[in-house]
Amino acid sequence: MPQGGTVVNAENQFVADVIVKDGLVESVGKNLKAPKQSIVVDATGKYVMPGGIDPHTHLDAEMGWGSKAEIISTDDFYSGQAAALAGGTTMHIDFALPIKGDLAAGFERYKKVAKKSVMDYGFHMAVTTWNDKVASDMGKLTKEGINSFKFFLAYSGSLAVDDAQLIHGFRRSKELGALPIVHCENAAALLDAQQRTFDSGFTGPEGHYISRPAVFEDEGTARALRLAQYVNVPVYIVHVMSGGAVAEIAAAKTRGQRVVGEAVASGFGADEAKIWDPDFKVAAQYVMSPPIRNKEHQRQIKAGLAGGVLSIVATDHAPFNSTAKRAGLHDFRKIPNGVNGIEERLHVAWDELVNPGLITPSDFVRLMSTAVAQTYNVYPRKGLIAPGSDADIIVFDPEVSHTISASTHHSRMDTNIYEGREVKGQVVVTISQGKVVWENGKLNIQEGAGRFVKLPVRGPLFEGLDALDAASVASNFPYGTPGQPVVRDLGTTASKDEL
Amino acid sequence: MPQGGTVVNAENQFVADVIVKDGLVESVGKNLKAPKQSIVVDATGKYVMPGGIDPHTHLDAEMGWGSKAEIISTDDFYSGQAAALAGGTTMHIDFALPIKGDLAAGFERYKKVAKKSVMDYGFHMAVTTWNDKVASDMGKLTKEGINSFKFFLAYSGSLAVDDAQLIHGFRRSKELGALPIVHCENAAALLDAQQRTFDSGFTGPEGHYISRPAVFEDEGTARALRLAQYVNVPVYIVHVMSGGAVAEIAAAKTRGQRVVGEAVASGFGADEAKIWDPDFKVAAQYVMSPPIRNKEHQRQIKAGLAGGVLSIVATDHAPFNSTAKRAGLHDFRKIPNGVNGIEERLHVAWDELVNPGLITPSDFVRLMSTAVAQTYNVYPRKGLIAPGSDADIIVFDPEVSHTISASTHHSRMDTNIYEGREVKGQVVVTISQGKVVWENGKLNIQEGAGRFVKLPVRGPLFEGLDALDAASVASNFPYGTPGQPVVRDLGTTASKDEL
Amino acid sequence: MPQGGTVVNAENQFVADVIVKDGLVESVGKNLKAPKQSIVVDATGKYVMPGGIDPHTHLDAEMGWGSKAEIISTDDFYSGQAAALAGGTTMHIDFALPIKGDLAAGFERYKKVAKKSVMDYGFHMAVTTWNDKVASDMGKLTKEGINSFKFFLAYSGSLAVDDAQLIHGFRRSKELGALPIVHCENAAALLDAQQRTFDSGFTGPEGHYISRPAVFEDEGTARALRLAQYVNVPVYIVHVMSGGAVAEIAAAKTRGQRVVGEAVASGFGADEAKIWDPDFKVAAQYVMSPPIRNKEHQRQIKAGLAGGVLSIVATDHAPFNSTAKRAGLHDFRKIPNGVNGIEERLHVAWDELVNPGLITPSDFVRLMSTAVAQTYNVYPRKGLIAPGSDADIIVFDPEVSHTISASTHHSRMDTNIYEGREVKGQVVVTISQGKVVWENGKLNIQEGAGRFVKLPVRGPLFEGLDALDAASVASNFPYGTPGQPVVRDLGTTASKDEL
Amino acid sequence: MPQGGTVVNAENQFVADVIVKDGLVESVGKNLKAPKQSIVVDATGKYVMPGGIDPHTHLDAEMGWGSKAEIISTDDFYSGQAAALAGGTTMHIDFALPIKGDLAAGFERYKKVAKKSVMDYGFHMAVTTWNDKVASDMGKLTKEGINSFKFFLAYSGSLAVDDAQLIHGFRRSKELGALPIVHCENAAALLDAQQRTFDSGFTGPEGHYISRPAVFEDEGTARALRLAQYVNVPVYIVHVMSGGAVAEIAAAKTRGQRVVGEAVASGFGADEAKIWDPDFKVAAQYVMSPPIRNKEHQRQIKAGLAGGVLSIVATDHAPFNSTAKRAGLHDFRKIPNGVNGIEERLHVAWDELVNPGLITPSDFVRLMSTAVAQTYNVYPRKGLIAPGSDADIIVFDPEVSHTISASTHHSRMDTNIYEGREVKGQVVVTISQGKVVWENGKLNIQEGAGRFVKLPVRGPLFEGLDALDAASVASNFPYGTPGQPVVRDLGTTASKDEL
Repeated sequence: MPQGGTVVNAENQFVADVIVKDGLVESVGKNLKAPKQSIVVDATGKYVMPGGIDPHTHLDAEMGWGSKAEIISTDDFYSGQAAALAGGTTMHIDFALPIKGDLAAGFERYKKVAKKSVMDYGFHMAVTTWNDKVASDMGKLTKEGINSFKFFLAYSGSLAVDDAQLIHGFRRSKELGALPIVHCENAAALLDAQQRTFDSGFTGPEGHYISRPAVFEDEGTARALRLAQYVNVPVYIVHVMSGGAVAEIAAAKTRGQRVVGEAVASGFGADEAKIWDPDFKVAAQYVMSPPIRNKEHQRQIKAGLAGGVLSIVATDHAPFNSTAKRAGLHDFRKIPNGVNGIEERLHVAWDELVNPGLITPSDFVRLMSTAVAQTYNVYPRKGLIAPGSDADIIVFDPEVSHTISASTHHSRMDTNIYEGREVKGQVVVTISQGKVVWENGKLNIQEGAGRFVKLPVRGPLFEGLDALDAASVASNFPYGTPGQPVVRDLGTTASKDEL
Repeated sequence: MPQGGTVVNAENQFVADVIVKDGLVESVGKNLKAPKQSIVVDATGKYVMPGGIDPHTHLDAEMGWGSKAEIISTDDFYSGQAAALAGGTTMHIDFALPIKGDLAAGFERYKKVAKKSVMDYGFHMAVTTWNDKVASDMGKLTKEGINSFKFFLAYSGSLAVDDAQLIHGFRRSKELGALPIVHCENAAALLDAQQRTFDSGFTGPEGHYISRPAVFEDEGTARALRLAQYVNVPVYIVHVMSGGAVAEIAAAKTRGQRVVGEAVASGFGADEAKIWDPDFKVAAQYVMSPPIRNKEHQRQIKAGLAGGVLSIVATDHAPFNSTAKRAGLHDFRKIPNGVNGIEERLHVAWDELVNPGLITPSDFVRLMSTAVAQTYNVYPRKGLIAPGSDADIIVFDPEVSHTISASTHHSRMDTNIYEGREVKGQVVVTISQGKVVWENGKLNIQEGAGRFVKLPVRGPLFEGLDALDAASVASNFPYGTPGQPVVRDLGTTASKDEL
Repeated sequence: MPQGGTVVNAENQFVADVIVKDGLVESVGKNLKAPKQSIVVDATGKYVMPGGIDPHTHLDAEMGWGSKAEIISTDDFYSGQAAALAGGTTMHIDFALPIKGDLAAGFERYKKVAKKSVMDYGFHMAVTTWNDKVASDMGKLTKEGINSFKFFLAYSGSLAVDDAQLIHGFRRSKELGALPIVHCENAAALLDAQQRTFDSGFTGPEGHYISRPAVFEDEGTARALRLAQYVNVPVYIVHVMSGGAVAEIAAAKTRGQRVVGEAVASGFGADEAKIWDPDFKVAAQYVMSPPIRNKEHQRQIKAGLAGGVLSIVATDHAPFNSTAKRAGLHDFRKIPNGVNGIEERLHVAWDELVNPGLITPSDFVRLMSTAVAQTYNVYPRKGLIAPGSDADIIVFDPEVSHTISASTHHSRMDTNIYEGREVKGQVVVTISQGKVVWENGKLNIQEGAGRFVKLPVRGPLFEGLDALDAASVASNFPYGTPGQPVVRDLGTTASKDEL
Repeated sequence: MPQGGTVVNAENQFVADVIVKDGLVESVGKNLKAPKQSIVVDATGKYVMPGGIDPHTHLDAEMGWGSKAEIISTDDFYSGQAAALAGGTTMHIDFALPIKGDLAAGFERYKKVAKKSVMDYGFHMAVTTWNDKVASDMGKLTKEGINSFKFFLAYSGSLAVDDAQLIHGFRRSKELGALPIVHCENAAALLDAQQRTFDSGFTGPEGHYISRPAVFEDEGTARALRLAQYVNVPVYIVHVMSGGAVAEIAAAKTRGQRVVGEAVASGFGADEAKIWDPDFKVAAQYVMSPPIRNKEHQRQIKAGLAGGVLSIVATDHAPFNSTAKRAGLHDFRKIPNGVNGIEERLHVAWDELVNPGLITPSDFVRLMSTAVAQTYNVYPRKGLIAPGSDADIIVFDPEVSHTISASTHHSRMDTNIYEGREVKGQVVVTISQGKVVWENGKLNIQEGAGRFVKLPVRGPLFEGLDALDAASVASNFPYGTPGQPVVRDLGTTASKDEL
């Protein structure tokens, strides 16, 4: 329906009309005749891009910590997706969490709460322990449409897995053709630093910052990448927040590893100083993990995105109201972790990356949409404007500016970490499943219209792994016959008990 | 025309028929009905891929050195392209060389010798000195279809530019939106090492190897990348042959630079030991620059391709017959530099990269074709199988093996650096401009059928550079007002002659 | 007593006579008059150097694994030290192991078995678990002369500590001014790889090699260094065996960390191929951890020593007879780990490092002796030839060659990993405690003559750590007042249960 | 004469008295009896350290640029050395510059102007072009006491050498056993950036900063180190001012190179913002090359010193009065380059490095004195407090603070780049050649008392280079016989003109 705009795909851009039918793109070309009664969106002078896909969100999530375990993230699948659509994101992949380690039970819960969805969504599943049922449930879930599993190195005592569990999880993921995702921070060091920070009297939000130095993330990233190298499995590193982690990912790529590095909008677009704000309400909203770091780290993350070391921009949208954040009023460890972003992602990323020339509009589409679709094996249904693709499309006006504010956003959050920030470039129209759902600053959405998108296993990252395993075995046999144990003379003096 | 095969593009793959009309792809889809009288190629169980594009060739090139300046490379545009088509490459970008520093004159010559072409081709132009005419000719050539300029750090006294010239060339390229290409080896060190090697009695081909250690390439690469960073221009590094150069490119990407790293098939697929062969004829054919290095370097280059640090596989096909190589019978410095590869590129790369699982078939298409088309701004006309694209298509059978030999290849070379090597995976059909030109081991080509493909400037790599310049200026003003000189009190004691 | 030789200290060298009295160096200078009746050693044309100090040995060690836990290393303090003296090493620091986690009990055992010593020795103590008694025993042991504690990341289920234990151990060591020492290999990955290797049929010694790839060591080193950075404690990395670990240490130094990297003679001087030997007796003797790696790793270790990234050469002398090694005849995991070296260290290191010009004789003295004395805070009593220093001195003839063999060495081992290797440069005289104990190929030693050298805590590596801690705290407060929690308005809506 | 203090050498520290006789240290020990009539300095509770050696100064130097070539640096050998002694530096090595490329002539001039010296000094000689006379003069100068030669990559058109000249200079230095010293910035890029900066209206001091980005230094350092690696010569990198250069030096050390990295006090202790000061007099005094960079670079330099990547702290003391600086009132390119520091070096370094715990007092002695003496082969005469060493000694009180100011310093400069800075730790007594020359804030010096210290070639950095060359040759022959050309069959078809 968008006519006259510049269609921007990850691989190229061109001026064209887009005809949509039955929720799919029917044709893309010049001077196409729109079918009768179809809605026409004038996109002249604007960009027409695939809708954003946010691969890292926590809607309706039971993520409370400490004394108040029942805290649920402020946005559910309705309000969070409403915000997403207003910001040009037409699909997200949410993190289903197990219930007491039970993956299947966790998935049931998330399927239920997702029923109020207004746009397409998929799920990752977190793996927080290891046993036969977990391994078996992983297999079952891949048949239900899950193709990625999340492992936390952080959050000792609740979500964290140890190295042995991680290796089991990596290998099982590889076997299933599902992508392992890792949150990289050293759990033991974190626990130690949190206690010491708290005991030193730093009980407020800045204690969160102080207790999570970049070295913890650098270590975790170095470890996860190397264990993935050992298992020979592709790996996805979530929310890269330190320059050191960017460098580790570059090193892994130089070693030839298949690694996907994810930045989050807050990691290069939010003000890390705010966590020191004297107003608890202001400070607490910046509590996320790993923490938002200083400008030098943010510069390195943006460079990593510009140079292709990092591949995706997500959000880790895990919204907690200022009242929810008060759970940690006297102990930063009890502040629910998470910042908003599902609505602001495209705007902040455009303003931080495209406006200063670090990346091109096509790069933008790749980072915000196409690479996500490819990584999670739902391309070219998603992440592309081409005949046959889903009609998840946005019209983006690079000349319009607006100011981000909790008073105007569409999330249920009563704060916004980008409060007062002016961004240039705006999503003016959002089309989801072929329908205009956002236009003229108004949402037109319908509860339940969202679809669960099954994500198939064995995506492109998994091609050729068997051959690679074989080559790796061969390289381990510098002197013998590859794959063959050395036939040995065990000596004539072997005593009975030896044999 | 290929039916039932698996169409492999860089972004994805799917089983489909391809309908070709008037030299273009008309449609791609399942169960398409081929037009009457059209030729059908059964591709069942095979891959259908965009034809290869080799961005680094020297056909009909005056590349003699030393005493015999008039040596012309053994393949002209007819024989070289015939070989290319037999190997699945349907376009190449050749290096036009200036005549005595005159770019325009050089281009005229190359246009002329290219008239016997049998397939599509484009040109780079080398810049080997700096003056106003060069700058002006660069501008004119961009209007004639050249969008890249080559600079040699090596070849002191003939092709080499110094740093000042390189900076001029970089800036002029940026101004024109044309891509600078750099051959990275330290000229002064090379000259020094060559003389010392020769004087020590190492006059044969191994002297070439001995006198070009990896440190020269590492240095040149580090320098070219940093000068490009200073000028803020995208840069293309040709024939990366050392692990150190791969690491430099990874570092540049981590800094956020726009850099394209090119490997060549011989750099990871040829046997570096052969240059020590006692038979001069055998040894001399391995003389190319930078030299083919040892297995550890080759491993690092392949890892760089697998991990995405390097983006393109080319050949530097600069064929010189064994008789031509004899120009350096008594002095390795006079051996014409160059190896064959335009025909073997796809086969060697598939065997070295896809068969051992380092990359996927889609990665293969990207490295051999799509990335070249995008880099040189001729995508999606080339590098993609989609409606509207040129019908340059190959059918690739991953199960068929053959042995490479000078006795069966299609180049005019009387040697082949891959002689006797068996490779698995073969181009069984090549379609160029919509016509089957290679099938059942036979070429069906027509002199003059090749077209000069004009390559437009300001490709994707050049988007946003102005904004990036502005941001860079701003970052240079940590304390003053960006873009504004400090207004200064020059002091009251200024004597007359100071003012 | 050595007269006319070139005295080589770490800082400089000069021709001088050395006068010894009462076990100490009395004077060093030209034309000194030896006291009456004193023994004169003619050192003309030879080097006179401080005796070697091997900081990494396992004499009389209970290091059996698997089914035969009681296996004791083949050399006790008598035979091991005899071998040491014959090879120019006049002091060693042995690893005392706890008994079932009990440090104090372990130390008692080692003090006892060390009574038969013939030369000076000190002890490290291993920490293999964490509890209050361990922390308390560490304190007590520092008062008894132990100033370093060893932590194993490897050996899951027996010696390994986890990250939390390591952090506790690091902090306690720092508190005591004692140096933490780390064996860096990922325990979980090792266990996994060992089982898989064994299950694949690789039950012989090459299974040891296959199951311990360099990536495990690289990971462990990266982790240990970063956790030490977090705790702000100096750290000592034992037996660096991979190029990746060398690079990690260089990175830590570039970050400003205080790190001491130890190479072992076998890591750059032994033939890694021998572990594939068809004769079990030959192969099994090369089983040590981390394993001896290929020539490229060995080259990088030697480069690290030459460039100063690594600081010390030790041995990890953990001798097990061929009969003891047979414990793992059917399972490489049960082969006692360890190679010989206490006698060969100086000869192998000179031949690998000084003869090819990688290091100078002064560098050699630093790597073999002085740096050890400084690191373990016993300098200048040891590691220097100067008035007042212990008269532990060797005379080294750089022109004499000999062939290493089990048939001539002084260890009780019935094999030697350097069997048949010719080395140039030889210890011709060894003086220990002022007495000539090795001359003309003969030992003149006395059981019980060896002294336990108490190593004092708070050596040079520990100076200034408090200030550094303070600076580190300050750097963690980019926005608030260093050291001061932010004073916060907690909001007016605080409900009762919040406060 | 200092009694009761803590003697600090690079290798260790201990409480002792020091007895001086005839300008030399006679003895060091406890409870030594001072000879009658000798002056006793009470050093109780203070550090007694070898006098500082500043290896990078420009006294009485003709360093004007641009229109006023005759500008001479403000301090001559009298005033500069007076300042040095007041700051605890008892020797310096100054840069003799050639006269119109003539080394011998340059040296004559410097010998003359140095006659007014009040303390010991040596010379480096700069090599600014290449021809037979230069090579020959280098040889002659080494016989006169010069053992190091300086090469500038920067200063196009005046001092700069190109790569070919640098290689010649490196090889000649190696032949002579003299140390090459390199100023690393890319000359062509600098010239380009200066012109563009000036043309953009940035004519003031901040133009100096803007036109010398870190990437120029990173490039130059990468290049110098790699060309030194090629020639296999030790190399000394002066005034490291960028984090990237520190990383390059660490990489070279990891490759095994012999490299000495020099920091300067201003590079980590001066305020880079001042060059933007609106007052020209203030801003201009911060003009030095490479420029003083931001805090992140300064942090990395200090880390490099702490971790041992950098080995020496110097000053590049090249003092130009505010009136001299006015030569560039309207063009930053004409501002004489240079800052003060010879007097402040020890105080700034102690305050920046020892007070925050980055290094120990022994490290301090090594960085300020011992490493310089060793590098320039005048150890242990200088750089050590031991019997026989020169009695160049300071007494340092770590508890005393003072404020640096042009109003109180001893240089002839009318400005001071550390103006107003308070530093803790102070040189309270300086002894030069056995005489107290600084005490109670008063100098007691005598023109002409300074001695030219001849620096002998073939210092420790040059040991073993021949063996290393041989090993390097061998490694270049992976397939043939090391050192032997391949014997070749040149083929039977050789035509006459080929042979």
